[in-house]
Amino acid sequence: MKKFVLIPDSFKGTMSSAEVCRIMAEQIGRFYSDAEIVSIPVADGGEGSVDAFLAAAGGEKVFCRVSGPFGEEMESFYGLLPGGTAVIEMAACAGFALSEGRRRPDLATTFGVGQLMRNAASRGCRKIIVGLGGSCTNDAGAGAAAGAGVKFFNADGKEFVPTGGTLSRVSRIDVSGLDPRLKEAEITAMCDIDNPLYGEMGAAYVFAPQKGADPEMVRGLDGELRCFAETVQRELRLDIADIPGAGAAGGMGAGMAAFFGAELKMGIETVLDTVAFDRIAQDADLVFSGEGRLDSQSLRGKVVAGVAARTKKLGVRLIAVVGDIGDDIQPVYDRGVSAVFSINRVAVDFSKAKKRSTNDLALTMENLMRLFSQMKL
Amino acid sequence: MKKFVLIPDSFKGTMSSAEVCRIMAEQIGRFYSDAEIVSIPVADGGEGSVDAFLAAAGGEKVFCRVSGPFGEEMESFYGLLPGGTAVIEMAACAGFALSEGRRRPDLATTFGVGQLMRNAASRGCRKIIVGLGGSCTNDAGAGAAAGAGVKFFNADGKEFVPTGGTLSRVSRIDVSGLDPRLKEAEITAMCDIDNPLYGEMGAAYVFAPQKGADPEMVRGLDGELRCFAETVQRELRLDIADIPGAGAAGGMGAGMAAFFGAELKMGIETVLDTVAFDRIAQDADLVFSGEGRLDSQSLRGKVVAGVAARTKKLGVRLIAVVGDIGDDIQPVYDRGVSAVFSINRVAVDFSKAKKRSTNDLALTMENLMRLFSQMKL
Repeated sequence: MKKFVLIPDSFKGTMSSAEVCRIMAEQIGRFYSDAEIVSIPVADGGEGSVDAFLAAAGGEKVFCRVSGPFGEEMESFYGLLPGGTAVIEMAACAGFALSEGRRRPDLATTFGVGQLMRNAASRGCRKIIVGLGGSCTNDAGAGAAAGAGVKFFNADGKEFVPTGGTLSRVSRIDVSGLDPRLKEAEITAMCDIDNPLYGEMGAAYVFAPQKGADPEMVRGLDGELRCFAETVQRELRLDIADIPGAGAAGGMGAGMAAFFGAELKMGIETVLDTVAFDRIAQDADLVFSGEGRLDSQSLRGKVVAGVAARTKKLGVRLIAVVGDIGDDIQPVYDRGVSAVFSINRVAVDFSKAKKRSTNDLALTMENLMRLFSQMKL
Repeated sequence: MKKFVLIPDSFKGTMSSAEVCRIMAEQIGRFYSDAEIVSIPVADGGEGSVDAFLAAAGGEKVFCRVSGPFGEEMESFYGLLPGGTAVIEMAACAGFALSEGRRRPDLATTFGVGQLMRNAASRGCRKIIVGLGGSCTNDAGAGAAAGAGVKFFNADGKEFVPTGGTLSRVSRIDVSGLDPRLKEAEITAMCDIDNPLYGEMGAAYVFAPQKGADPEMVRGLDGELRCFAETVQRELRLDIADIPGAGAAGGMGAGMAAFFGAELKMGIETVLDTVAFDRIAQDADLVFSGEGRLDSQSLRGKVVAGVAARTKKLGVRLIAVVGDIGDDIQPVYDRGVSAVFSINRVAVDFSKAKKRSTNDLALTMENLMRLFSQMKL
């Protein structure tokens, strides 16, 4: 019996990774009806990450009521994987999709994320993965810390929950109230960017505009982040400004590191470790990965390159099925990709190609499987 | 030692079949340095057909002086294949590229083609292949017949060489003067279209405009062809109007059939038979074919489908590497194509894709060879 492992990224703007897995599996099934097919749709930390982990590793979805991005109570969720790892996506209670037109990153909070983490810890989870991405916030994770028991005080000694617009008012931080079960937990923050907390490449300048901040608000938010970093430095003796990924999800990367001791990890590495990819793939006949575009930039933390590093060690063949293939992809082969195929099958531009992507992916997979089945893979 | 057979069509508008063979062979050589690679670039009958046959089958190019399209003497050529088959392309003495701005299909002649045929017969060739295509003529092959000894007389009993504009003046035809060696020869005309001699789908209406005929001249040329068909019917008792392919190359298909008893055959079938494809391919590990676009229309006489019919019988695997892949290509697999891959690797329209086609073909072949070499083909 043949064994295939499917571990694609989403094809940005066209297909989710779950959809890519489904199409790949369907075509494989046509030619190997009794094959074992393991689908591991990769999530980047944003919306859908919990579902992707559950699809890949099994487990259950836990629902609970926490604070939404503007303080209103709402039903949110996280994933409980077999073995007791919790997967949280911050988008589930601080996501842009939940802001419903209130484009106010200065007012939005990640408080609910801290509540979700606390809930998971109370269920005995000792490993917690938090997906950063798709947020409507800019609070440097201060809200999440508050939701988990950290106390923030202003100059008058009054406790409050800071948001993106009030970070500079924090004068004293008391971390002694942090839920002790979270202190013991191993916490990973998934993020695929390495931006610093503030400055030109920081959270406010790069990501706040898409959350609704106008140029004036962007300048204000950046100043708040800068102030907050100084306060954290003074109070906790931690330098969070330049941690790679500190600027992810409105500074959430910085807060995860500062208050939860979280390790900031690339999404693909988190997925590979969490689902025990090496064990799954070691006896695979073939691994398929994919992403919307494969090029020399793909070597930095992206899905295909991440998978290749593992399959190469395992001595397992990896085929990348992708949207566009850039030039100069020799390094990709060196990384361990056996071969790369584009799903493009007619010469049309992307506005047309994206509409036919599911069809074109199916055809490309079909023809690869035709080859393999005739070559007695 | 692995054996690969390459038998692609040209990718119209981007790469000649010889260029496709060269790129394919280069990539195969990178992964199988000691492979036997047989290249059979397919010609459709037009310009370059002689070179394609010589590249595929070996042999020599014979040069001789004959009449050009407007009666001027010129140096032309044909191919002499091992075994004594001659390959002539009418474009070598009646080709559009030779008309040098004289866009007058009413005045141009195929006289030189008859001279080339005669020359080949005089060298002992008993099989002659004439490629129809790329012509600047519309003389229904009357010129070629005259060049080979057929006599045409007008109503006054005066002998003349009719051209597209004077076919209707033919009153009597005397075929007794046709070179006796040509009478005995087996003559094949290569053409990839099945248009009738005249009418809406005939030589004049469909093809004369691209040779420079304005609407008025088209109507005139069509009338001349219609008249000539009646004369041939009356004089030779042959109905040439509706032979499929009669309208090829300005009615050359009709003339080849009427005066030389030629069989009108699809280019790919002619190539396959002439180079003894079945013998070459029977012990191949893999056959590669290709064309600019593969779709349901490809089933009619086109290269990939023609090759597939043979490889299927031989039980040899055939991979098609093509430009665009149309929808509904299931029949192509049924025909015997093992798998189809598009060279498109970025989502851009054809105006951009064509500029990168050699590069994209090389990459697609490279990745297929990477697969094969790792799968121990």
